[in-house]
Amino acid sequence: MKTLMELAKSGEITEIMQIAAKNEGVTAETIRQGLANGSIIVPFNINSRNRRNIMAIGSGIKTKVNVNIGASQMLSDINLEREKLKLAEEHKADAIMDLSVGEKANEVRDMVLAESKICVGTVPIYQALNRLKHQGVEALKIEDFFAVITDQAEKGVDFITVHCGVTKEIVEYSQKNPRLAGIVSRGGAIMAEWILKNNQENPLFKHYDRLLDLVKQYDITLSLGDGFRPGAIHDATDWCQIAELKVLGDLTKRAWEKNVQIMVEGPGHVPLNQIKENMELEKKYCHGAPFYILGPLVTDIAPGYDHITSAIGAAIAATHGADFLCYVTPAEHLHLPDDKDLVDGLIAHRIAGHAADIAQGLKGAKELDFEISTARKNFDWDQQVALSINPKEARRRLDLNKIDDESGVCSMCGDFCSMKRMNDL
Amino acid sequence: MKTLMELAKSGEITEIMQIAAKNEGVTAETIRQGLANGSIIVPFNINSRNRRNIMAIGSGIKTKVNVNIGASQMLSDINLEREKLKLAEEHKADAIMDLSVGEKANEVRDMVLAESKICVGTVPIYQALNRLKHQGVEALKIEDFFAVITDQAEKGVDFITVHCGVTKEIVEYSQKNPRLAGIVSRGGAIMAEWILKNNQENPLFKHYDRLLDLVKQYDITLSLGDGFRPGAIHDATDWCQIAELKVLGDLTKRAWEKNVQIMVEGPGHVPLNQIKENMELEKKYCHGAPFYILGPLVTDIAPGYDHITSAIGAAIAATHGADFLCYVTPAEHLHLPDDKDLVDGLIAHRIAGHAADIAQGLKGAKELDFEISTARKNFDWDQQVALSINPKEARRRLDLNKIDDESGVCSMCGDFCSMKRMNDL
Repeated sequence: MKTLMELAKSGEITEIMQIAAKNEGVTAETIRQGLANGSIIVPFNINSRNRRNIMAIGSGIKTKVNVNIGASQMLSDINLEREKLKLAEEHKADAIMDLSVGEKANEVRDMVLAESKICVGTVPIYQALNRLKHQGVEALKIEDFFAVITDQAEKGVDFITVHCGVTKEIVEYSQKNPRLAGIVSRGGAIMAEWILKNNQENPLFKHYDRLLDLVKQYDITLSLGDGFRPGAIHDATDWCQIAELKVLGDLTKRAWEKNVQIMVEGPGHVPLNQIKENMELEKKYCHGAPFYILGPLVTDIAPGYDHITSAIGAAIAATHGADFLCYVTPAEHLHLPDDKDLVDGLIAHRIAGHAADIAQGLKGAKELDFEISTARKNFDWDQQVALSINPKEARRRLDLNKIDDESGVCSMCGDFCSMKRMNDL
Repeated sequence: MKTLMELAKSGEITEIMQIAAKNEGVTAETIRQGLANGSIIVPFNINSRNRRNIMAIGSGIKTKVNVNIGASQMLSDINLEREKLKLAEEHKADAIMDLSVGEKANEVRDMVLAESKICVGTVPIYQALNRLKHQGVEALKIEDFFAVITDQAEKGVDFITVHCGVTKEIVEYSQKNPRLAGIVSRGGAIMAEWILKNNQENPLFKHYDRLLDLVKQYDITLSLGDGFRPGAIHDATDWCQIAELKVLGDLTKRAWEKNVQIMVEGPGHVPLNQIKENMELEKKYCHGAPFYILGPLVTDIAPGYDHITSAIGAAIAATHGADFLCYVTPAEHLHLPDDKDLVDGLIAHRIAGHAADIAQGLKGAKELDFEISTARKNFDWDQQVALSINPKEARRRLDLNKIDDESGVCSMCGDFCSMKRMNDL
């Protein structure tokens, strides 16, 4: 079987590329070229293509947003997770990652893989670790890992996060030169523990070629995890982060040689003035591969509002090269998010992505703003609601007005409404 | 009486400058120099100084945030507005603007002027217009306007927004070359209507010297309103906006000649890629005067979430020169904000301001992030809550955890907590 990248390199435009092009509002040749040079990915497992929307991620393509869900050790209920999947789809998430751990993890993940209409990602090391039961992380064998990936691949996972870049060298450096927040990536911390306890190189780094050969059979996209993403403003853009990024750049090239689609994961907590530089470093070291970012959160001081600290960073990042935003919810750093947190986090990052699309001058972006502002100017409230990023919330709030409908104005300004005044002139 | 600007120009460092310097963590000489050259303001009416916190706004000073409150035609209750004032103070707003219109406007404004512990601003044209009762805007006389300002000045208003830059020329241009959203500033729209119906120049522009002589007696700061702030992405950085900005630059110089403190108001709805340019234009045309901005909102499509669209723009703007952020709430474009909207809007903009302070390298900014991240790393939840931007909300969310307290981890990751894993190593 040939992967999309291989087909694209040979000059072939397939039906999937055509559908992706149509959905993205670009030419099929744009998609083909991007797939061929690695700047665009179309992350879909050959086993999932009949049931998922087809979309692209990368340069010149509208910014995409991912939602994380998943059962936890505290809350393990398949129906709750199904509800979250539906909410994510309803509010136009582009992808969903199932991060389930704990008792019902397998059931929940299988449900998401089977039912999701949008692209699905996972972090296979969670399932691998769950299999160990009461043994420590160090008992993990590379065969366990490949067994888990094969299981998820067969069931249709579209992209997987693998922490191949957490090398022994960087882990040892970080032990000698501790960061403020240490390693805040769950997968990264697991790999670091494995490396230190076994005193061996990261097995995913060591067996990277075998990993590529496996995922290639399903055209699964590798999402190269950033185990050393900074978890505090103080740790941003430090030696560990950049050292890992360079490793990921080498791994990107090796994946492309085998025609495996790649995206690279990025920070984290980053001060606003370092965000552009961080995006440029990724594009440079990783040869233009799509950048999938968590945040960046522009401050550490706002637990309860980290969807906002993240949306600020994400908007700037996506303007300067980030292609795919992992949402952060208001629950970050404090507790497992609920349904409202999911929607708030998703909408905040869709706003960030859209603001960046406008800033980049992408076709079809500012046109949405023109339409809603026309409705606003015309006091066409129904149309304004329909064109809103979350029509349900816009409607709920509009209905809070206790003002006479005939006047047309809202309760914020009443007769002092400037638009009404100017329209009347 | 000498204004702070006049004293500063003569080289004198007063007690107020010393207190402002201490509160801001800069030297008194920094404050004096900034006051003298207009890049810093300390907006306090001589009649209010015994009851307000003293703070500075401007270059090299931490970003400040303003909260708007005020009775409306629909909801006119002095106790509700007092509650909002208390909430704004509790959540560390730096200033409050009373924008009351309608029945109880005078009572509410007088209460705010008398009781506020933080800097108070108003838009006097609202009171002037309220006095007209059933007459049209065009009946407004300049004497009405000065009577209202004198009344508010005596009661201790610290800064007033005046739309002096909405000139006849720009209004006529905007009639011939309509924008998408027209004029969205309430005060700007009132002035435009007055100008068109009377076919005369803006009285506040015409009688600007008299206005300066009046406010100078109280050392009131003028906030030069931006009647033509863009109300849609499509209108950003257009001819009207820039033409008015240039007028405001001239008015800034004239105010400084009379030793009146000045800040300039700015946009509005602005695409992310035009924000830096907009900040630089203000600093250039207005000779480095402090910039007081509403937003900028980086998209029009998110009614219900405009505290986020605004916080994104505000963080970037404050990084590139904006000094004072007017909050925008989730209710913007839809309805009058309630208490929760007020807090959500305020915190979103405090986040934006702090992110910008970090980015600018201001002393005492990233130190707060270091402290909270240290508490996070140490699993010192109480300290993390105490150092949060809104401790009440952080505590409320933390208490949602249903996890065993002994483990120390939160319900997001449970035993998969990376910090716990790394600390244990």
